[in-house]
Amino acid sequence: MNERLLSLLQSMKAQGWDHVLITDPKHVYYLTGFASDPHERFLGLLLSTANDPVLIVPALDREAAEAASTVKHIVAHQDTDNPYLLLQQQIQGTAGTLAVEKDQLSVTRYEQLQQHVKSEQVEDVGDVLRGLRIRKSAEEVSIIKHAVRLVEDVLTQGLAQVKIGVSEIELVAELEYLMKKLGADAPSFATMVLSGPNTALPHGVPGTRRIEAGDLLMFDLGVYAGGYASDITRTFAVGELKSEAVSIYETVLAANLAGIQAVKPGVTYGSIDRAARKVIDDAGYGAAFVHRLGHGLGMDVHEYPSVHGLNEEILQPGAVFTIEPGIYLPGVGGVRIEDDVLVTDHGVEVLTSFPKELTTIG
Amino acid sequence: MNERLLSLLQSMKAQGWDHVLITDPKHVYYLTGFASDPHERFLGLLLSTANDPVLIVPALDREAAEAASTVKHIVAHQDTDNPYLLLQQQIQGTAGTLAVEKDQLSVTRYEQLQQHVKSEQVEDVGDVLRGLRIRKSAEEVSIIKHAVRLVEDVLTQGLAQVKIGVSEIELVAELEYLMKKLGADAPSFATMVLSGPNTALPHGVPGTRRIEAGDLLMFDLGVYAGGYASDITRTFAVGELKSEAVSIYETVLAANLAGIQAVKPGVTYGSIDRAARKVIDDAGYGAAFVHRLGHGLGMDVHEYPSVHGLNEEILQPGAVFTIEPGIYLPGVGGVRIEDDVLVTDHGVEVLTSFPKELTTIG
Repeated sequence: MNERLLSLLQSMKAQGWDHVLITDPKHVYYLTGFASDPHERFLGLLLSTANDPVLIVPALDREAAEAASTVKHIVAHQDTDNPYLLLQQQIQGTAGTLAVEKDQLSVTRYEQLQQHVKSEQVEDVGDVLRGLRIRKSAEEVSIIKHAVRLVEDVLTQGLAQVKIGVSEIELVAELEYLMKKLGADAPSFATMVLSGPNTALPHGVPGTRRIEAGDLLMFDLGVYAGGYASDITRTFAVGELKSEAVSIYETVLAANLAGIQAVKPGVTYGSIDRAARKVIDDAGYGAAFVHRLGHGLGMDVHEYPSVHGLNEEILQPGAVFTIEPGIYLPGVGGVRIEDDVLVTDHGVEVLTSFPKELTTIG
Repeated sequence: MNERLLSLLQSMKAQGWDHVLITDPKHVYYLTGFASDPHERFLGLLLSTANDPVLIVPALDREAAEAASTVKHIVAHQDTDNPYLLLQQQIQGTAGTLAVEKDQLSVTRYEQLQQHVKSEQVEDVGDVLRGLRIRKSAEEVSIIKHAVRLVEDVLTQGLAQVKIGVSEIELVAELEYLMKKLGADAPSFATMVLSGPNTALPHGVPGTRRIEAGDLLMFDLGVYAGGYASDITRTFAVGELKSEAVSIYETVLAANLAGIQAVKPGVTYGSIDRAARKVIDDAGYGAAFVHRLGHGLGMDVHEYPSVHGLNEEILQPGAVFTIEPGIYLPGVGGVRIEDDVLVTDHGVEVLTSFPKELTTIG
């Protein structure tokens, strides 16, 4: 049994849980090595203090599961089977205290589960999994670094295509082509290229607008590679910017650096957000920084923890998260600068290395 | 108020529900025209029999929501706000009978909702939404047809890159680049190119294997365009195939045609699956057709209904779904042929038009 499963079993015993049901495909992968996308089909890893783990998979994934999973007891279900009856057969009788992924399990599935599997108490295994996942191993960090290198290479090569007249979606197509070509598994989210007035929309969608001189040009992109995500944002000048655009750029860059400088074990996530936000507040743009400072990064591009001003959780070595302050000013434009950072034993390692000084391209 | 919202309000009243909370971003889009990806942030559309609809959005999406949403009462929440308190303020007092999307809402969110919003009864709005979505309007069908044309153009142009020695993932990169270049919003799922022995894995993942003479070569791909999905699978011969590979190809093609021929209003989804499956059973390959015949297609690439042998629901005009029989034989390979079909007033319209006779490429 691998180390992660053993840690989870240990936590189960400490909590007094009899069974844990894992239904998030990412967590099944994390715990067994079997990666899959079951779509709406049921996928479940059942852990029990009394029995060996069982992996329940759609029939069409049986062969792939047998090849990849370290959990070797595999039960396959056809589309016409009721997978909850298979669970019932595995558990036999009451499940006692059953822990599930409450933030992943839908109410529908929860009701089906309760209908077929009797339990005395239902607990949430979410915190235990987040506790496992937040501390990245050296191996995980090295995979994330690879994903970061890939996306930075993509950005470097993609920038060569920027010229007056090219559209946002053409640049997106080019970047996502480069991701595949350079060996990424997939974009870690819908690649964002926004230009000119569109940069003032913090979650804008790339469109057919063509790059013009005087534009701010924002790239927010990431890749999945080896099962882990990277995520980077850089904003560039196309030709000469208005002076207010330059000044929001310098403010965001100073906020980014202040956030990074605040990172070390033992401080709170809230203090990192506040350190960066203070720079923007002091410059008078506080109302235009409408989102949290960042988010955890790992097997999911947005994962626990959330880096916002009210998060009083303590930073631990091995945590990886983004620092991405932004200012969005309708009429002027938007700037965001995002890095990925690792909490080390004594401070911080910035995983992204793409230059951040205001750069003119195109 | 648009027609879809009116239909939903009508259903609410018929069911005796006081409030409906919509939390699936696709359904918020479907009902308001506001498309967004809120990631883990709360997005909710609250409908009430007594009040006008309210859209609750993350603060960073406020501007985009104001521009796109037909629901004009918009409440924005910061990352540090508790969105359930905002819901509580909107509802004031008990919610009476509250319907939610049970198959979309997580247990965590459901528990937070119940903690902040008192209700007498919680119902599932899922069936009502599925009932709305299953009957595509003429406009929706025309958007799906556009998504189908796009993916067929991608496949046609992508096939030109097939040659001995090219790898599965290189072909995936080429296809996804073509998707963007030809104007798709995104792949509708991870593009699948499998070759040789890998075709025997019905949910295999493209890798570095290079195409060889004698391979079966399977493409399963789709795009999102204009908010709707297409989905097509074709399997080709690279050079000369073993005779058993040819015979499974002919069997799958006959099953695909038998499935299509069975489509008309008034019959059951189960009968469509059984019509196709009988061809494969009769040829002796029944055990190697390990999945349902197909799935609904629309705003989601996999949506309601599921086309499997036990689904006794009746086909209605306006329904769009896939027909995708397959045979997967370890040691020989796999073949799947997938079309997208529309139930018309009197029969079927096949939306995909890519040729299906066994074709040699490369």
